[in-house]
Amino acid sequence: MPDKPLNGHRVLVIVTNYGVEQDELLVPIRRLKEDGADVILAALTSEPVQTLVGDRDPGEAVRPTTTLEQLDLGEHQLLLIPGGTINADQLRLEPRALEAVRAFAATGRPIAAICHGPWALVEADVLNGKTLTSYPSVRTDVCNAGAKDWVDEAVVSDSAGGYTLITSRTPKDLDDFLGAINEAMVGS
Amino acid sequence: MPDKPLNGHRVLVIVTNYGVEQDELLVPIRRLKEDGADVILAALTSEPVQTLVGDRDPGEAVRPTTTLEQLDLGEHQLLLIPGGTINADQLRLEPRALEAVRAFAATGRPIAAICHGPWALVEADVLNGKTLTSYPSVRTDVCNAGAKDWVDEAVVSDSAGGYTLITSRTPKDLDDFLGAINEAMVGS
Repeated sequence: MPDKPLNGHRVLVIVTNYGVEQDELLVPIRRLKEDGADVILAALTSEPVQTLVGDRDPGEAVRPTTTLEQLDLGEHQLLLIPGGTINADQLRLEPRALEAVRAFAATGRPIAAICHGPWALVEADVLNGKTLTSYPSVRTDVCNAGAKDWVDEAVVSDSAGGYTLITSRTPKDLDDFLGAINEAMVGS
Repeated sequence: MPDKPLNGHRVLVIVTNYGVEQDELLVPIRRLKEDGADVILAALTSEPVQTLVGDRDPGEAVRPTTTLEQLDLGEHQLLLIPGGTINADQLRLEPRALEAVRAFAATGRPIAAICHGPWALVEADVLNGKTLTSYPSVRTDVCNAGAKDWVDEAVVSDSAGGYTLITSRTPKDLDDFLGAINEAMVGS
C-alpha cells in the first residue's frame, strides 16, 4: 500500500439528507480519500444525501456510511461540516449533530466548517473567542455567538480555546480549506 | 366601494427573487388585499419572484410591484417579511432591506416576520429586549441578537422598545399571523 499523507486518519462528515452544497461534500470526500484518509459520512437517515448546486439545482446523490444516531463519536480525528443553506439550517436542529460538535471541541480535535456550516458551531456554542470566516450571511450570527472576529479570507485556522477551527467561505475556497485540513491532521 | 377593514392601509412586503416560502407570500398578499389594503411587493430585481413549497418544490412565481432600490420607505404602514430559508438568508445581505427594517422600527411602524424572516431583524439589530417567535432554527440567532425571550407560540405581538413586532413560526400559523397584522394596523 503506497504511503499517503493521511493514511490512518479518520474524518467524520455530518450532514442532513437534503440541500448539502454538492462540491462542499464531494470534493472533500474525494480528495481526503485520495490522500489516504478514511472518510465516514454520517447523515440524518440512511437514505441517499441529495446535494444541491448553488442552493438550487439538484446535484449528485451520495449514500451515507452511517447515521448520526448510530455514530461512534470517539473514533474520528477531524469533524467536517459542509454548507448548503438548507442543509446547514436543518443540521443545527439535530441534537446528535450538536453532540458531535461539542465532543470534538471538548476533546481538542479539529473541526472544519465551510459556507453556512458554522451555524452548527453557533448552535453548539463553541465559538467563544474564536476567529473565523463563513458565508457572509452567517457573519452576524457567529459574531453574536461570541466569536472574537470574522474575517473575509479563503481559509482561517484558529487554535484559540482548546481546539483547532478551520473555516472557509464558499466552494471557491475548497483548495485552501483542504490544505488547512490536511495540515491540522498531519500536524496533530 | 365597500367598506373594508384595511381600506386606506398600505403594506410593504420585502423579498429576494428566489426561495420565498410560497404560502408565506401568497396568502398574506391575497388576504390583505381582500381586506382592502394596498400591498406593495418589493423584490431585489423586477423579475418574477420564484417561490418554493417546503424549501424544495417550485411554487407559484409572482411579479413584484417594485424593487428594493426604487422603493419609497416612507409610504407604508406595516412591513411584512416572509420566510423561506434561502430567501431569508439572502435578504439579510441586502443593505436596502436592512434600511427598510431600521426605518420602520425607528418610526414606530409595525414589522411582521414569519419563519426565517426574523434573520433580517437580527441583521438590522432591532431585536434588543423583544419577545418573539420564529422557525426553530432561528431561535439561537434571535436570542444572541439581544432578544429578551423566544417563545414557541403561533403568534407573538410585542410592542416593547418603540415598535410593534409580530412574529410567527411556519405557514401553519398564517391565520393567527394575519389576525395580529390586521389588529396592529386597525388599532394603530
